[in-house]
Amino acid sequence: MIPETFTCDLVSWDRAVRLSRALAATVRDAGYRPEMVIAIGRGGYVPARIVCDSLLLNDLTGIKIEHWGIAASKGKEASIRYPLAANVRDLDVLIVDDVTDTGLTLRLAAGYVEGFGPREVRTGVLQHKGTSSFSPDYYVEYITDWRWVIYPWAMHEDLVGFTGKVLTEQAKSLAEIRTELSRRYAIAADEEEIMAALADLLTLGRAVEEGSHYRRRETTENQSSFHR
Amino acid sequence: MIPETFTCDLVSWDRAVRLSRALAATVRDAGYRPEMVIAIGRGGYVPARIVCDSLLLNDLTGIKIEHWGIAASKGKEASIRYPLAANVRDLDVLIVDDVTDTGLTLRLAAGYVEGFGPREVRTGVLQHKGTSSFSPDYYVEYITDWRWVIYPWAMHEDLVGFTGKVLTEQAKSLAEIRTELSRRYAIAADEEEIMAALADLLTLGRAVEEGSHYRRRETTENQSSFHR
Repeated sequence: MIPETFTCDLVSWDRAVRLSRALAATVRDAGYRPEMVIAIGRGGYVPARIVCDSLLLNDLTGIKIEHWGIAASKGKEASIRYPLAANVRDLDVLIVDDVTDTGLTLRLAAGYVEGFGPREVRTGVLQHKGTSSFSPDYYVEYITDWRWVIYPWAMHEDLVGFTGKVLTEQAKSLAEIRTELSRRYAIAADEEEIMAALADLLTLGRAVEEGSHYRRRETTENQSSFHR
Repeated sequence: MIPETFTCDLVSWDRAVRLSRALAATVRDAGYRPEMVIAIGRGGYVPARIVCDSLLLNDLTGIKIEHWGIAASKGKEASIRYPLAANVRDLDVLIVDDVTDTGLTLRLAAGYVEGFGPREVRTGVLQHKGTSSFSPDYYVEYITDWRWVIYPWAMHEDLVGFTGKVLTEQAKSLAEIRTELSRRYAIAADEEEIMAALADLLTLGRAVEEGSHYRRRETTENQSSFHR
């Protein structure tokens, strides 16, 4: 289960781009020369595109892994949602994702791609969590203490998820919501971003507006923000 | 043919992200509610990921279009390199790319995806060039006078391409190369980025180092930077 309060790490675009360039440099410095990059959808798309730029690789494709159950819980399972559309036979392949969490995604992806007869499959991520049961071949940062990482390409959807979590039966002002996001998750979001998240929560029927205050409206839906 | 001298437009990460968020807002404001986003590889990957974030869409996949011949020439042809891996039947689909150039890519992609029986296919790009023979349903900026747009996710490969172009038989210093990039293409790149491009040109055998100067080494290879 996801605990009530935990630290989020907001990654800026600048930092995410630097991490992606650094991942490419790590791969190159290790002497690996992939001929194709496979992004794990959706989190690996931006890092993979940047890695291809740094390594001058034209061949980029993606696969999508679907998760069942709640992220960061042990009972989670994964399966291939969008299969491989490229021929990897006899190629050196690099699979790229943003982060290892349980490690389930990369483990499944690597085994799946191996089945298509590439010469070699290696894996790379920007950030590797100590909680992961799978060790990627390449990573830029190691995260010892578990935290939720908010990448800039998932900023809005994660903020919708977390804003939904801090809403209660008792209506809160924008300032109170902002304070709660900071206190419970160490999320420093600006008011405009929180307003955009609240607008979507209203549209989704997960929040109710009362004057300039917002309160939770219970639904049975899952938090889409935890399904990367 | 690509002319000897023309203007390049370097798009920063900030601007590219703003354009991508604006594309999502344009789609939403038009009342279109896509259920799946298909990125055109490789240029559409980053915009598509951001559009999915803004519109809270989980279903993102990509197809890759291959180009034959030289970009910006009329004789260019295109074909599907990596096919569609997702089921789009009866879905409202949004195809996302960075830019329309000849329009060939989006025209091919839209027709191709239509063949899989979606409910509707619409197309969106960050920047739409007046040279395009295909009009996307949504775009954020219209480019009247043709120019080469360098997106931040293709910065290195484009710089490799353009640095290769300004090298001549007579060796040039880094400062001279930088001046030429600015004069011929209006590219304001910093020395570190040009050095990284030169390092790759040396590795690729397309440049020769003479002291602290660099000269062209003729090859018969195409410029990979013009194959997005």
